[in-house]
Amino acid sequence: MPQAINSGLHPMYELFFENINKKVALTEADKAVIKTYLTPKKVRRKQYLLQEGDVCKNIIFVEKGALREYSLDESGREHILQFALEGWAISDLYSFLTGEPATYAIDAIEDSELVLIGKSAHEELLVKCRAYETFTRLNITGAYLAMQKRLTSTTSASLEERYEAFVALYPHIAERVPQHMIASYLGLTPETLSRVRKRISQNK
Amino acid sequence: MPQAINSGLHPMYELFFENINKKVALTEADKAVIKTYLTPKKVRRKQYLLQEGDVCKNIIFVEKGALREYSLDESGREHILQFALEGWAISDLYSFLTGEPATYAIDAIEDSELVLIGKSAHEELLVKCRAYETFTRLNITGAYLAMQKRLTSTTSASLEERYEAFVALYPHIAERVPQHMIASYLGLTPETLSRVRKRISQNK
Repeated sequence: MPQAINSGLHPMYELFFENINKKVALTEADKAVIKTYLTPKKVRRKQYLLQEGDVCKNIIFVEKGALREYSLDESGREHILQFALEGWAISDLYSFLTGEPATYAIDAIEDSELVLIGKSAHEELLVKCRAYETFTRLNITGAYLAMQKRLTSTTSASLEERYEAFVALYPHIAERVPQHMIASYLGLTPETLSRVRKRISQNK
Repeated sequence: MPQAINSGLHPMYELFFENINKKVALTEADKAVIKTYLTPKKVRRKQYLLQEGDVCKNIIFVEKGALREYSLDESGREHILQFALEGWAISDLYSFLTGEPATYAIDAIEDSELVLIGKSAHEELLVKCRAYETFTRLNITGAYLAMQKRLTSTTSASLEERYEAFVALYPHIAERVPQHMIASYLGLTPETLSRVRKRISQNK
């Protein structure tokens, strides 16, 4: 069931389709079908898109701004699983696919403009639109490879290597995101991250 | 380009298609197309399918037997990334997709019967056969979710919880695979795993 577009702005989704087109060629017919399933959303910095324990009902595409996905441990410390900047998709995929409560929360690091695709919209688009299925396959493949790299690097790379791999993966985020969040993503204390950055700049 | 089937056994690939059919309905035409791209292979226990540093050229489907995928650290210790039993697919996906040298090795834990799909066969099938693309999307989604679960459990669950999650994911493997490999998969010493198993059986 297509979701209503509840915005007076008649969004054109130009960036959204541009990002799909980088991976899969879309016909005008594809775009027309996909458009009817999209929901635009604007959020302010610190606003939630998903809270831990709720069911994740959307895949969220970032048009503008930045989101993060994280979990809280028993002592209330945040562990960042993923950042998402312009052109990235983010969701608690396990919760989205199974309908079980989310183990992650998602909120905005900056004021952001988003495009949401709900669960039933996603399922219908996968069947109706081959290009959307191919786009989904490529997205999930990229996410798998990124996570595998991270799993390997967490167990075997030096701190300097891990920070430099992070900067290579997210070239713009180091300037936009607070250092304590980058430390959390890397599993370090802010003090350790600061020492790592210092060592790297001294060796250049 | 379809690969030659170099076996006098005229394999029927019954199990292979049965496993796809559990996820995606295949027509007889789909099966006929896919068959021309498959290569059967038998290996003995301890035989390699992929060595670290070589390029991974195949996705390997296990028809019978058991494989493992692992890396070696600088001190020569094995870290097991994944097991694969009947019905599972295994490959160094990063190397397979990018053509870069593999960071993982794959070998047989038991005498095994396999079906290989090579890189160009995979690419052609994705385009030619929608059912194969859907099967690939579902496989990679499952692999992503399993890896995410593992990343979370490695950082936050107790040893007992991690072992029990492993047994739930691989219900038959605990009986078939040597304990030191299960310990390696869980990132434990064999002695620690033995204590964990003892505590679990005492609490039942």
